[in-house]
Amino acid sequence: MKTYPQSMLNLMRELGRMPGIGQKSAERIAHYILRLPHDEVMQLAVAKRNVKQNVSYCSICCNIGESDPCHICADHGRDKTKICVVEQPKDLIAIEKAGFYEGTYHVLFGHIDPLENVAPEDINIDKLVNRARENNIQKVIIATNPNMEGDVTAMYIHERLEPLGIKVTQLARGMPSGSYLEYANSAVIADAIHGRKLIQKD
Amino acid sequence: MKTYPQSMLNLMRELGRMPGIGQKSAERIAHYILRLPHDEVMQLAVAKRNVKQNVSYCSICCNIGESDPCHICADHGRDKTKICVVEQPKDLIAIEKAGFYEGTYHVLFGHIDPLENVAPEDINIDKLVNRARENNIQKVIIATNPNMEGDVTAMYIHERLEPLGIKVTQLARGMPSGSYLEYANSAVIADAIHGRKLIQKD
Repeated sequence: MKTYPQSMLNLMRELGRMPGIGQKSAERIAHYILRLPHDEVMQLAVAKRNVKQNVSYCSICCNIGESDPCHICADHGRDKTKICVVEQPKDLIAIEKAGFYEGTYHVLFGHIDPLENVAPEDINIDKLVNRARENNIQKVIIATNPNMEGDVTAMYIHERLEPLGIKVTQLARGMPSGSYLEYANSAVIADAIHGRKLIQKD
Repeated sequence: MKTYPQSMLNLMRELGRMPGIGQKSAERIAHYILRLPHDEVMQLAVAKRNVKQNVSYCSICCNIGESDPCHICADHGRDKTKICVVEQPKDLIAIEKAGFYEGTYHVLFGHIDPLENVAPEDINIDKLVNRARENNIQKVIIATNPNMEGDVTAMYIHERLEPLGIKVTQLARGMPSGSYLEYANSAVIADAIHGRKLIQKD
């Protein structure tokens, strides 16, 4: 059976490997690329090559960047004694967008997950411990996601950093600002009641 | 112009006063009631009358109930020295469903809202303060909604109860359990970072 030319089939196969792109989407995108003007196709190819050539991992915080150290680790305005540990670069972006955290980061690229065979040595925890030991780090804020894998990862990091005399904290769990109690599930209400705080005057 | 018989118009007018029911919905419901068998219409009427006859407000906690005191205030297994303050009965239901709070409640039926002309004396705050003073209350947990009105209400209650030597806490604010950092908005991330806690071993 003869279907598409071989170069179309190759393109569809490569596209179909991308996350969230199935066989049908790959077919549609391949046709879209075929119809694009030559220079736009080249722009796309160059953009892809540049990401691969120019973006690398920061040797300090493991975040992605076009320089090493990355623009956050190289920023003299940042508090270098404070590290916020996140699972992925997109989590770092979310915290940066909030716009008030003035310390540095450490990107784990994952979380400990025994069911998926992800052990502590498979993510950037050793790098974090070495960095903390060698750089007089005083505070580590663990900002892993609020679920079981995130908590296991936080607990493990705490056990590694505590002997170094580092103050290890974890993001607060509770009611999200702007939500309503009547729609909150039991786990959220449990966190909110267990973690309740004395009211302080501003 | 002659439209519906007067008794249909009366029913539509009464139905149309209910929250979330507009003129068109009222018309549809009136026709539905007209088509119902006689005994089902009577069941509905009896159910409405019984709610009005049998349900009243608890003289202790202001919650709705078919007895006074309500079944929570009358329960000897409840910790009577602890009050959880909520805005509405449906918030109380949400906390009860979570299934581990063993104290009593106080229902404000609203929150302080200067823009809507709701002052402290318009909701059940005086009753709460009197109840706390007269009944040796030691702990008050304020579970108003996590928004500006809820916080203003919490702050006001705190100012009234603190001079009585009562420990006043508020529900924890932060990341909701099971959510993802990358989708959290800036206000939630700010709460989570500001409220971060030392990691404790279980």
